[in-house]
Amino acid sequence: MSMYSEQSAVTVLGLGPMGRALAGAFLDAGLRITVWNRTPGRDRELTERGAVGASSAEEAVAASELIVVCVVDYDASDAILRQDAVTDALRGRTVVNLSADTPDRARDTADWAAGHGIRYLDGAIMTPTTTMGTPASVFIHSGPAELYQEHRPVLEALSGTHTHLGEEIGRAAAYDIALLDIFWTAMAGYAHALAVARAEGISARELAPFAKGIGAILPPLFEETAQEMDRGTFSGEGNPMASGASTMAHIVHTSEGHGIDAGVMRAAEGMTRRAIGLGHGTDGFIRVAEVLGRH
Amino acid sequence: MSMYSEQSAVTVLGLGPMGRALAGAFLDAGLRITVWNRTPGRDRELTERGAVGASSAEEAVAASELIVVCVVDYDASDAILRQDAVTDALRGRTVVNLSADTPDRARDTADWAAGHGIRYLDGAIMTPTTTMGTPASVFIHSGPAELYQEHRPVLEALSGTHTHLGEEIGRAAAYDIALLDIFWTAMAGYAHALAVARAEGISARELAPFAKGIGAILPPLFEETAQEMDRGTFSGEGNPMASGASTMAHIVHTSEGHGIDAGVMRAAEGMTRRAIGLGHGTDGFIRVAEVLGRH
Ligand SMILES: NC(=O)c1ccc[n+]([C@@H]2O[C@H](COP(=O)([O-])OP(=O)(O)OC[C@H]3O[C@@H](n4cnc5c(N)ncnc54)[C@H](OP(=O)(O)O)[C@@H]3O)[C@@H](O)[C@H]2O)c1
Ligand SMILES: NC(=O)c1ccc[n+]([C@@H]2O[C@H](COP(=O)([O-])OP(=O)(O)OC[C@H]3O[C@@H](n4cnc5c(N)ncnc54)[C@H](OP(=O)(O)O)[C@@H]3O)[C@@H](O)[C@H]2O)c1
Repeated sequence: MSMYSEQSAVTVLGLGPMGRALAGAFLDAGLRITVWNRTPGRDRELTERGAVGASSAEEAVAASELIVVCVVDYDASDAILRQDAVTDALRGRTVVNLSADTPDRARDTADWAAGHGIRYLDGAIMTPTTTMGTPASVFIHSGPAELYQEHRPVLEALSGTHTHLGEEIGRAAAYDIALLDIFWTAMAGYAHALAVARAEGISARELAPFAKGIGAILPPLFEETAQEMDRGTFSGEGNPMASGASTMAHIVHTSEGHGIDAGVMRAAEGMTRRAIGLGHGTDGFIRVAEVLGRH
Repeated sequence: MSMYSEQSAVTVLGLGPMGRALAGAFLDAGLRITVWNRTPGRDRELTERGAVGASSAEEAVAASELIVVCVVDYDASDAILRQDAVTDALRGRTVVNLSADTPDRARDTADWAAGHGIRYLDGAIMTPTTTMGTPASVFIHSGPAELYQEHRPVLEALSGTHTHLGEEIGRAAAYDIALLDIFWTAMAGYAHALAVARAEGISARELAPFAKGIGAILPPLFEETAQEMDRGTFSGEGNPMASGASTMAHIVHTSEGHGIDAGVMRAAEGMTRRAIGLGHGTDGFIRVAEVLGRH
């Protein structure tokens, strides 16, 4: 079929919100791309803009040397890549898996890829779909440095910041997990705060300016306490963790007094009380991280 | 005693890290202040800078028309204020309680104050000790508007942003609880992320620049999703909550695979799965807030 006779610079497998945003950014950068998604019809806007819509995953894979996969997780990417026809088509080509999952799954995929003559890089996307194609997007990568250098020009066509974190294939996923841990825990806290605020007659719009203020004090605090973590000294001089635990108890009390589940804060208070019980009540809160990791 | 014959502009009760920072900021502003703390000796630096160190809480109270209280919680402020001699000395004066606690405790304190002829404002401090006396500090207040206006000049001598949130005395504490809910949940997430990162061989210093990046995307997301919350429409177009739940499961798996307790994320995933179970899987994550508040 003549449509596929010309090589694409990159194939994008998976056209969820992020896959579509990636493909759109490649098109914006002027690259020839081929796209495919399990559920048909998701490629409409992209093909209208010049992308080639493949009718099967193997056809999509055959169209490019570089295959970017962006689906919900590695169960999903396995369901696509580990079909015989697709695996065969991948031989000698490079897969960059930008789907989120655990470091274990990245390592397992690297083993599978090596066993089938497939060149493999792992990666993760740290910013929302709206940042794709803009300098605000953040990508992390891991795997063979040479392979990364080879495909770097195409990846960097996406714009944003690209960091190669090391050769160990699980490294990008490990960063991703840690960073998403911060993100989703914070979002869970925000959702809970909105529920408690509403129960107290405070609208989300009233709370938001102050919530943004809280958001703004986090980055410098992350930086400062990271240094404490690496040094192993946790100064509680400005704010001892016992004071934090007392605040957490107030939050649980107020939440449950409104019939609102406080499971997240109960767990946070629990881990803090455990660190206090181990004698660290006058230390800074980040001591909790060191206690969590003890065996 | 001649030391106490001249009136102070303000008395500060409680000289923990925050009480000392407040008192220092009042001194920086050139105000005459009197200070007291349960455990003696905490006033040394302040008295060297010109503060009057009272030898009892009642003596401290008698020195000023305006009494700022900043202790760990309302059990602590009750232990100070509800002693007969102190309560007597407070009659006709104004207490601003900047200790953190629940809205209930603020309401209870207002009742007690009214019953003893004590004028009462509640408040909370939303920024760390290091911001005291700087424009970066944030204070919220609630209680009688006239009383607030009367003492506003002294409070604003602390610099920073002061917002009177309304006459309902519990309002500052309600905002405080909601905002600290965001803060402490996010810090719990960060502590957990540092523990997982360390188990994956990633130092806190390596993670920190990316963690700051995550911190930076939170404020605009808080704003955007606050609008969804008030409107009651939760678009999951860019990022459906089912995708978030899948990520949360990866975090739990990776954490527990390293023997690191994942109680906070388990609870966050639980509340997300519950919202999905109620049919909201394709909605944006903040729908969880609405579900949490249902009865
Ligand atoms: N959205 C964001 O803001 C964001 C930000 C950073 C990272 N990410 C990551 O990017 C990845 C993609 O996310 P997304 O936002 O596009 O939405 P998503 O809901 O996480 O993933 C949807 C995609 O996964 C595919 N998929 C699911 N199960 C499949 C299976 N068994 N076989 C084949 N395909 C399957 C879907 O295909 P169908 O259309 O056929 O269902 C669709 O293409 C995820 O790992 C996500 O964590 C997203
Ligand atoms: N530190 C911060 O960054 C920060 C930020 C925002 C808000 N806050 C709030 O500010 C308030 C004060 O915090 P903090 O940082 O100064 O440290 P803290 O540990 O929360 O409070 C210490 C103060 O409470 C006093 N206290 C405790 N129990 C008492 C009792 N039963 N009777 C009398 N006094 C008692 C202590 O007196 P002794 O010296 O005698 O023990 C000391 O003055 C808290 O509500 C906190 O949540 C603090």
